[in-house]
Formats: sequence, C-alpha cells, structure tokens
Amino acid sequence: MNGNNIVACEYVASSGQSFSAINPATGKNLDGDFYPATDADVNNALQQATEAFEAYRSLDKDKKAAFLRQIAEEITSLGSALVDRASAESGLPAARLLGEMGRTTGQLRMFADLVQEGSWVNAIIDTALLERTPLPRPDIRRMLVALGPVVVFGASNFPLAFSVAGGDTAAALAAGCPVVVKAHPAHPGTSAMVGDAICRAAKHCGLPQGVFSLLYDSGYEVGAALVKHSQTKAVTFTGSFKGGSALIKMAQERPVPIPVFAEMGSINPVVLLPQALNKRADELAAKYAASITLGAGQFCTNPGLLLAIRSDGLNQFKTSLATAIKNIQPATMLTPGIFNNYQTLSSAVAAEKGVSVLAQAEAGESGAVNQAPALVAEVAAQEFLSNPKLMEEVFGPFSLLVVADDEAQLNAVADALQGQLTTTIMAEDDELPEYTGLLNKLANITGRLILNGVPTGVEVCAAMQHGGPYPATNDSRYTSVGSTAIYRFVRPLAWQDWHPSLLPDELKDSNPLRIWRQVNNHITKD
Amino acid sequence: MNGNNIVACEYVASSGQSFSAINPATGKNLDGDFYPATDADVNNALQQATEAFEAYRSLDKDKKAAFLRQIAEEITSLGSALVDRASAESGLPAARLLGEMGRTTGQLRMFADLVQEGSWVNAIIDTALLERTPLPRPDIRRMLVALGPVVVFGASNFPLAFSVAGGDTAAALAAGCPVVVKAHPAHPGTSAMVGDAICRAAKHCGLPQGVFSLLYDSGYEVGAALVKHSQTKAVTFTGSFKGGSALIKMAQERPVPIPVFAEMGSINPVVLLPQALNKRADELAAKYAASITLGAGQFCTNPGLLLAIRSDGLNQFKTSLATAIKNIQPATMLTPGIFNNYQTLSSAVAAEKGVSVLAQAEAGESGAVNQAPALVAEVAAQEFLSNPKLMEEVFGPFSLLVVADDEAQLNAVADALQGQLTTTIMAEDDELPEYTGLLNKLANITGRLILNGVPTGVEVCAAMQHGGPYPATNDSRYTSVGSTAIYRFVRPLAWQDWHPSLLPDELKDSNPLRIWRQVNNHITKD
Repeated sequence: MNGNNIVACEYVASSGQSFSAINPATGKNLDGDFYPATDADVNNALQQATEAFEAYRSLDKDKKAAFLRQIAEEITSLGSALVDRASAESGLPAARLLGEMGRTTGQLRMFADLVQEGSWVNAIIDTALLERTPLPRPDIRRMLVALGPVVVFGASNFPLAFSVAGGDTAAALAAGCPVVVKAHPAHPGTSAMVGDAICRAAKHCGLPQGVFSLLYDSGYEVGAALVKHSQTKAVTFTGSFKGGSALIKMAQERPVPIPVFAEMGSINPVVLLPQALNKRADELAAKYAASITLGAGQFCTNPGLLLAIRSDGLNQFKTSLATAIKNIQPATMLTPGIFNNYQTLSSAVAAEKGVSVLAQAEAGESGAVNQAPALVAEVAAQEFLSNPKLMEEVFGPFSLLVVADDEAQLNAVADALQGQLTTTIMAEDDELPEYTGLLNKLANITGRLILNGVPTGVEVCAAMQHGGPYPATNDSRYTSVGSTAIYRFVRPLAWQDWHPSLLPDELKDSNPLRIWRQVNNHITKD
Repeated sequence: MNGNNIVACEYVASSGQSFSAINPATGKNLDGDFYPATDADVNNALQQATEAFEAYRSLDKDKKAAFLRQIAEEITSLGSALVDRASAESGLPAARLLGEMGRTTGQLRMFADLVQEGSWVNAIIDTALLERTPLPRPDIRRMLVALGPVVVFGASNFPLAFSVAGGDTAAALAAGCPVVVKAHPAHPGTSAMVGDAICRAAKHCGLPQGVFSLLYDSGYEVGAALVKHSQTKAVTFTGSFKGGSALIKMAQERPVPIPVFAEMGSINPVVLLPQALNKRADELAAKYAASITLGAGQFCTNPGLLLAIRSDGLNQFKTSLATAIKNIQPATMLTPGIFNNYQTLSSAVAAEKGVSVLAQAEAGESGAVNQAPALVAEVAAQEFLSNPKLMEEVFGPFSLLVVADDEAQLNAVADALQGQLTTTIMAEDDELPEYTGLLNKLANITGRLILNGVPTGVEVCAAMQHGGPYPATNDSRYTSVGSTAIYRFVRPLAWQDWHPSLLPDELKDSNPLRIWRQVNNHITKD
C-alpha cells in the first residue's frame, strides 16, 4: 500500500506525521502509512493541473471518452482487492461495495458516452445578418468551455462512487477540467488504489500527467490550502453542513472567489397520506424500516422525517414499523466519530420535550464496536413546529415521525421545513388531488419529488436532480448525480465574427461532429 | 409624474424626504417628487410577490408570452414622452434612447417567443425500466422551474434596456419569477413611466398584481433591505465593482444565502496585431475613436485597453487616433457623480508614472456641465505590468494604449489581465495562426471573443454571452444579455414515479406542448 501523495500522476516522497486507516468494525488500524501533503505538493498539483488544462480541455472528444472508459477498466480490474479494502475501511458490506463499484464505473462510462456524443456543450449559433438595418448583425457562436482545475473532496459515505473516481471526478474530467482530489481520511487505502488506477489510465491514454493528483491529510489544512489556491477554479464537497459551510466561506473570501458545490445533507421528509396509511400500513412500514436503516442510514437521502395525520391507519403503521425496526441488526458505521455523533444526536433528539421513542433496535453483539442501533422517535406536530432542533439531520439509521392533528397542521409543518434533497409522498391516486397545495409547497423546497417510493437509491441518469434548496446544497441550480452534473464545471464562451479556421469543431458551419445545435433559433443536427 | 412607490401594481401613499431627478446637461432638477420606500413597502412587495409566485410560475406559456408582449406594447405607446424624459434624466441623445427603446421592447418579445416555443425548460425524461436487475429503474423526469421573487437593480447607463423593464426583468418574468425593481435614482421619472406600463400590462392580462413592484430610494437602504429580505430568491445588478461586491456580501451573509448576478465592469482589452496595424492603421483608429467615445464611453463593453507591439503601423494608428479623438465633441455624462469620478480617475491614470496623454478632446462649450472630454493615454507594457492601478476601469470615454516591445511582452500583459466581459483581436488572417497561444490565454479570461470588430454594441440573441470571469461578473456561468439570461432564475426539479395527471405538461408522455425534449438520451419532439 503506497501511502505517498500523488502529484500529477507521480508518487512524491512524503514525510511528516503519518496516519492509518481504521477498521470501524474492529477499531483496529489497517495497513498503510499515509502522509499529509505539503504546501509544495498542493502548489505543484495545481501548477501542473493548470499546465495540463490547456491541452486537456481541447482534447479530442473520443480521446477524452477513452480516458474515462480506461479509468473504469482499471477500477474494474482491481476487483475484490478494492472491495475488500473499501469494506475494511468503511464497515460497509462487500455486496454493497460491489454494487457501488458498478455504479462508479457506470458513471465513468455514462460521462464517456456523453462526451463522445458531444451535444452537451450546448452549441448555439446566430449567423450574421449583413443587410440588417440600422446595423448589421455580427456572427455569434457560443458553447460551454471548461473552467480549469477542480478540487474534489472525497466523501466518507460512498468510498467509491463519491470519492476519488466518483461522480464529481468523472464529471469534471468529462468537462475538460484537471482534478485534484483531497482523499477522505476514513478510506485512504481505497483512495490510493483508485488514484493509482486513474494514473495508470492517464498514462495508458498518453495524457498530460497534471490531469490528476491525489493528496492526503488527516486534518483540515490541506483541504483549506487547496480551496484557497489561486489556480483552483471550482470545488466539490459532500458532507456535513459545518464542513461545507467552512469551505464555501473560504472560497468566497478569496481575492478571486470560486464556486463551491456543497451537498450538505437533508432530512428528506416523507408524507404519508391518510388513504395510503389506511390501505397499506404494513407495506409502508416494511418499506420504510428498510429505507431508514439501509447502509446504517448513512445516505444523504435517508428518510429522517415521516409526516402523517393522526388516524387508525397511522397507528397500524407505527406498530408495524416498531416491530420491523426492533428486528433490524445494528450495522457498523463509517467511522468512530460518525458513530459517536449518531449516539449523541439521536439520544439528544429522543430527550427533547414531547419526543418519545417509537422503536429502537437491540444493541449489537457484545464486543462489536461502532454498531448503530436504529431509532425511530415520535413527536406531535405542535411540538415539532416550536423546536428547531428537531429539524436538524441525525446522520444514521434514525427517523422522526411527526404526527399532525389535521391537514392544516400538515401544511404548517411543510411551511416550516428547510430546503431538502428529496421529498416523498405516499398516497393513493384518489387522494392526491386534495393535496395540490401541499405538493406545491413541497416542490418549492425540494430537488426531487418522489411518489410512492423511497428516497434512498439515487438513480444515475440524465433526468436525476440530486441537489436541493439551501441548506441541502448551497446551489440548487446544479446536481451532483447524473449526467447534468457536468454543468458545474463549465461556462459559456462566445466567439464573434471569429475566423472559421479557428472556431472549435463544435461551432464550425459544417458541424463536423454531427452534434445537436441551436442554429438561428432552430434545433438541428445539420 | 407620480413618484409614489408601486407595491404589487398599486401606488402606495409615500412620504418622507423626497428626491428629484437631475438633468445632467443643465444640473437642474426635473419635475416629479420621488419618495424612498419604507420597510413596510419592501415587506409588502415581497410578500405579495411570494403570493403571486404560486400562480404566476405555472401560468400557461401563451399567457406569459402575452404579458411580455403587452409590456412591450405599453412601452412603445409611451413614445417620445418616454424618450424625452429618459434623455433629460440621462443626458443621452434622443436617437440613442429611441434605439434603446427598440432594444428593450425587442428583448421582451424575444423572451415572449422563447417562452411560447417552450423548449427552454430543458425537459429530460428517463422512463422506467421495470425489468432491470438487480433493481428496477424508476421513471424520472426533470425540467427547470422558477426560483421565486427576483430583485432587479436598475442600471444607470441603460435607463431603458437595463432598467425597470430591461433584460433582467424580462428574463425573470419569462422564467416565471415575480420582480421587485429598485429604481436607479438617476432616472426615477423614466422608471415611473415604465413601471406604470408594466402594471397596465399586468392588469390587462389579468395577472396577480404581486408579479411586479417598483421601489425608490436615493440611498442604499432600500436596496439592502430588498437583498436581505427572506422572500427574495435572486438579485441582479449592473454597475460598479464596489456596489456589486457589497450586494454579494449581503446575499452571502443571509441565513439562507441567495444568488446575486452582478455585472461589475471590465476594461475590455483590444489587441491590435502587427499586420492589421500595418495595413489598416487609419481604419482601426477611426473605428476605435468611435467605440471609445460612443455614449460618452459609458458602456460595460467600452474598450478601455488597447494593446499592441511597437511598430511603424502603431505610430500611424496613434497619430490617426489622436486626431480623431481631438475632434470628438465632449458628451454629457449620466450623472454629476459619474462625471466627477471620470475626471478624477482619468486624470489620476494620466498622472501615473510612465503614462503620457496620447490624445485629449477639447473641453465642451462654456456653461455646459458634466461634459466628458475623451482621453487616450499611453504607457509602456513594462510600466503597465508593474502598476495594478492601470488595470482598473475608468468609466467614461477613456482608453489606455499599452505598448509592448515584442510578442513575449504582449503575452505577459495578457497573463496579467483579470477577467473581462470581452476581448477583441484586430488581425489579418495570415497572422492569426502565430498567436494561438495568446488567443488561448485571452479565451481563459473572457466571456466573448471578437475578431476585427468593436466590443461596444452587444447583440441581443441566443448565442450572446455577456458575462466574464471575475471581477467582470461574479458568476461567469451566466449572461445578462440574450435569451439564455433566463437560466439565472431557474433550477432543475425532478419528479420520480410521479402521477401522470400531476406532471407539468412539459413532462407528460404525449408531449402536448410539442417541445424539444431529451427522452431516454435522445433529443426529440415526439
């Protein structure tokens, strides 16, 4: 396990206070010594990223796609060694990580397809009108171009799909931006294996090596230096509100501010409408017991708030949910710190005024560490509305059932909610039309509306929106999942009366790339 | 002239310390007493905008288009009365304002066309794959939806096209966002006339009146209150770096931060390449004398920096430019404050070390006030590179010619430049290939590249990009001119397994609006 930092696809001699990965299921150190990057490493990584940018951003689209596919190949070839290391570092089961590996390579291939097809650059051409009076119209052509070096922070909860070669890296590389990854300290070994895979792919494809760097740190200094570096042009982050907010502030206070795309969590409200509860209380309870506890509840889209009107159906749902939750085995959380936070926060919420425990799973086997028992608490809507602490995210297998007296109180709770990644409605067809007002309210605070499903499980596709109003993310106009995630790393550039020979292929009259374009207000491939 | 504030399309009784418009050509007050809005006005405007939002955002697209067209009609019907008032308040000639009125109504109609055609919402549909293993794919559909109430700051330099019913208002209304305008204090009468026109259109179209408000203030308090109001969802501003930066900071420090789109000026470098100077020095001089002094140099895209390598052609250009500049009559600036700033800043730059005056226009007629004489200064590239003061914008008919010894120095100057709205190259075809490196550098710092033209005159069309890297704007990913300006006021929303009857028309299977959509990764109108 090579724990040296990777600067421009080369291992650099590293020293200083090393750190190790910890297996959260045992509390024991794993092999490998990882060294915090130095200021020189940060500077060299961004300097070489900037130098590589010039060639990489205008790389032939087939070559860029081949690079993304090669990364997927290299990751696939790591096979069970990667799954085992990721499992040891995260406490997540091997089966889940095998699925996550598929998602990770699938994302890379999705962006390869997008880049190769080519229309994503949104080419718009307005040709000259030389005879127009009083002034002729010039020829103006515009398309999206890459921003420059992007700093990606690996996330703890997806050691593959939101980490070194995760969606952010794939989208930035697809856009034409070199990437410098700050490895998450909870899974440095997984990061090292994937970083090495990216470098092998870059070398295989003959790319400028500055296209990728991977830096370690067990603290916050390297991350801060990366965000503050003048050559960094954008930053991505998935994690806590506190962490995201700190990075956003740093980026705003730079002499030249840069965008940060921070996904900072969400309580993902689920509204259970009366007829649905009346008809399918047991089914809903089973579905939500599974969703609340999936992956030890460590998903951005974990359903942390259940909302319903008092009814017999709700009573049946509560009974059924309590039974299901009690029977769910505690699972290992990602890190000791996350486990401690979960214990502290879930207990604190349960101890708030008016809150009772609806169901709590049994403790894990004796001797096992960092095992989170699921907890579902209950509170009356009136108490909920008067206590902002109850609206905060409890990261882990936790959910709070908020019980309203009537529809008016249901609406009042919806009005009080902050921005969310997702909002879910469980409903029978017949009752939906009655709740149009509620649905409109929920649409205003959310990035994705779900009917009769669960928010966990984020499909990676073009139509996905994984990003909601603040504080779920700091910029609801972008997504961090799906192919449109590429738009975080580009800006439009217009060329006026430009020399045809110097125009990018995407904007040439003959449309040599056969992409979809808007020409004089008509969508065409001609 | 009714100088009361307009809250939700109704005049409200106003009081307090009124202010008047000043005719900058005479220094005398114009008729009309305008009253600063109160906190209650700000609050009522945003409260009613929020209430109107629910109905307005989902208004039938034909009705929204009809509203935009009706505003254009109402403005057109104001005719010469509007042009005369705008001319008296701004010092701009009637002919220019007649043109600007055409641009303003043209923009409104352009957005009406865009909205009516409908494809701008970027609908993306990924249909369910129920047989997929291990998990079925849900049905996910996404489109862009309006953000909510938008606060528009009127700009001083375009009393029609970037003011009450200017591009920002037109784009926000087209997106489905109610608008609250903070009138620019330099042209309150023009603002009042246009505000009244918008309200007539809203009433004519039977819209919720909260869709538009117009508030006055001669200072900064009302603007600050608007930006800080919890119901404001986005802000647009065109003006100084200082003003824009203050608004951005306020918006970032809110409990829920919101986007500000600030266009904060630019020096719009023009690179004159050797062969072009050698062949057409006189033509270039005439073209640039006109561009530098157009509208008293009060354009965001005014060419404030000319850059060339020392040569005989350059000497000829200088002689010719000096002659042309000397013969240009001084023109009235927009306000006494802007005139004073121009005098102070242009003199200060001319007094910097190594700077000489290449040409200065004669002073205006005696007795005339706020008349800006054009000034072109000259400095060697070496001095320019060591003095950051020379890179700051001088708003007015000013340009600085920076003379490089050789191509290396030209590149060094390009490396030193900050973000720009535009960059222009004057070149012969033959010499362009030599300067690829320079062109790439300039592309990285600019929003619009122009070949053999002038940056003044911003075409309003789909391909336009009016927005460059910081500090030209604070968000280079958006434009404030052209139809894509609408994308500042929307965010994506995804619907998962949503009930067909509740989907917006844009996302229904049958595509009842016949818009272009992306369905399962294919672009189609089916």
